[in-house]
Amino acid sequence: MSDNLHIKAFGTASKDDDLKAMTIERREVKPKDIEIEILYCGVCHSDLHTARNDWGGTKYPAVPGHEIVGRITKIGDDVTKFKVGDLAGVGCLVDSCKECESCKQDLEQYCLNGSTGTYNGKDKYLNQQTFGGYSEKIIVTEDFVLKIPENLDLKAIAPLLCAGITTWSPLKHWNVKEGSKVAVVGLGGLGHMAIKLAKGLGAEVTLISRSPDKIQDGLDLGADAVVISTYENEMKAAAGKFDLIIDTVPYDHDINPYISTLNISGTLVLVGFIGKMEEALLSVPMVLGRRSVAGSLIGGIKETQEMLDFCGEHNILPEIEMINMQDINEAYERMLKSDVRYRFVIDMQSLKN
Amino acid sequence: MSDNLHIKAFGTASKDDDLKAMTIERREVKPKDIEIEILYCGVCHSDLHTARNDWGGTKYPAVPGHEIVGRITKIGDDVTKFKVGDLAGVGCLVDSCKECESCKQDLEQYCLNGSTGTYNGKDKYLNQQTFGGYSEKIIVTEDFVLKIPENLDLKAIAPLLCAGITTWSPLKHWNVKEGSKVAVVGLGGLGHMAIKLAKGLGAEVTLISRSPDKIQDGLDLGADAVVISTYENEMKAAAGKFDLIIDTVPYDHDINPYISTLNISGTLVLVGFIGKMEEALLSVPMVLGRRSVAGSLIGGIKETQEMLDFCGEHNILPEIEMINMQDINEAYERMLKSDVRYRFVIDMQSLKN
Repeated sequence: MSDNLHIKAFGTASKDDDLKAMTIERREVKPKDIEIEILYCGVCHSDLHTARNDWGGTKYPAVPGHEIVGRITKIGDDVTKFKVGDLAGVGCLVDSCKECESCKQDLEQYCLNGSTGTYNGKDKYLNQQTFGGYSEKIIVTEDFVLKIPENLDLKAIAPLLCAGITTWSPLKHWNVKEGSKVAVVGLGGLGHMAIKLAKGLGAEVTLISRSPDKIQDGLDLGADAVVISTYENEMKAAAGKFDLIIDTVPYDHDINPYISTLNISGTLVLVGFIGKMEEALLSVPMVLGRRSVAGSLIGGIKETQEMLDFCGEHNILPEIEMINMQDINEAYERMLKSDVRYRFVIDMQSLKN
Repeated sequence: MSDNLHIKAFGTASKDDDLKAMTIERREVKPKDIEIEILYCGVCHSDLHTARNDWGGTKYPAVPGHEIVGRITKIGDDVTKFKVGDLAGVGCLVDSCKECESCKQDLEQYCLNGSTGTYNGKDKYLNQQTFGGYSEKIIVTEDFVLKIPENLDLKAIAPLLCAGITTWSPLKHWNVKEGSKVAVVGLGGLGHMAIKLAKGLGAEVTLISRSPDKIQDGLDLGADAVVISTYENEMKAAAGKFDLIIDTVPYDHDINPYISTLNISGTLVLVGFIGKMEEALLSVPMVLGRRSVAGSLIGGIKETQEMLDFCGEHNILPEIEMINMQDINEAYERMLKSDVRYRFVIDMQSLKN
């Protein structure tokens, strides 16, 4: 007889279905495990892509959600870092091999043996895919559970677990500090966090956007300047300016115009687009200015904790719009139209209704 | 009446002409200038591209040559670092603004106001293009003159001034050291120097070549291993291996297969190709492994001196084939067929004949 838990969740049975209420199985709490009652769950573009199998490889039923904040309801006998009643967070990863060169360097996101995604990963104990945060509870090994700063508004913290760390990690890896000149391309869930975090680190931040509609929003979020990428004169004026560009655009786009705005030895980091970049890359500005194009994926657990602590100290939080679990299908449609400022967060209380 | 010097040289009057003997004007020695009798001049692919206007912008007559080694025959009154009779080297640059952020950081190759190329640049004193090392003498401001280690075989030093520094600079910038895993793509003038310098720095070096003919050559030059890029199994076995790839291929090529051989956080540096990379770049391996693609251009003067000193200490020299000045047109044809191991050096004594 199985001791598995039966948990209320919200997911989809196939790529063409809407998400709806369902029951999933989770493992019982193992000695190193933590059981978290999920209070809030952010809605990431990856949720939608996975639900609809846009990247291929989705296993069904699929229960998305990897920006999870909740309260600990149970701990295993060997758990040392948390106690029942603590706030807790879970991001995009729930496990990794812990033995490879990446894991030994706290880079679990680049685990050479394959880290375990919070959803659509492979559960190590049960013969099934992992299920994400669109559910009442989640069970996670304590090494992948984050401590949540007590001083922040709990409702808004969830998106830090993906949108926050995805932009924080390259800012730190490429050494952004007081006075660094950072540009953020694209103003969505990732972009708005990149602005806030880069400002928090003391950088001079420029938003680069295609749309003049975003000028006021960019400034309101803390950007020092906004460059409209379709205005040739503004792009020319920005030539050679930035030490680092965080490119959050989630679809294929021509990065050559942005590369020209990098300073000598500057780097453009892709964090939003996974795929083939059809526009031919020009090596001239790269060679003539030692410029780089790089990619970056979320961040490791240690780094995620540092980011959360930093946000607690600097009172940095995403802008959110709260929705009920039952609104998720509509929310996905609005996300596709970029009609969200800047991240949906699900009040998981609604799942109980 | 002009005090300009009239100097014997070898150059071309148009893109379609062969190179032949001609007389050029050079400025007389100014207070900070050094006059060098050129003993040896390396032959770089850029010489050929400039002579034939392959990149556009060549001014004629064109006198190539930017791997220059000689002896000082005269110095200006304010010269402090050199004396008559000293050995001296001149590389790809003969001047820069010395005031911009790049110059202040000893990165004259990235001078924001435009550095002065040794040939086809703009002479600051005379209203003409600069003329390179295919000539009896050259006059250069002392800040752009390099000291030549006395212990090395003088004939072979010249190619260090371009092929050497072009590969040294990225090895140093991306922090190659004892135990680093470096791959070198392409085995020509740049590639063979990249192998020697990376080995000198203590790296484990792999040559990646399309041609099995290069296996023995690569090993003879010091590579620890050779991977044939057209053998799928060898490329697969190299997946995730290299911290740094120095890509010396001088024509457009698909870099995606090489990116996959980078370790987490690794970088592929383009040093050989300037142009449009027609093959679509795949962001997947970049994002999933924090991998970068970068470019790099020669090196600064301080760094060039460090490289020369390092080569002196470690007895590192290019493999050369000595030619006479009159053989240059034939040498260009052989370079186009990659029929050179690995760098032609002109014995400038032959120009006097």
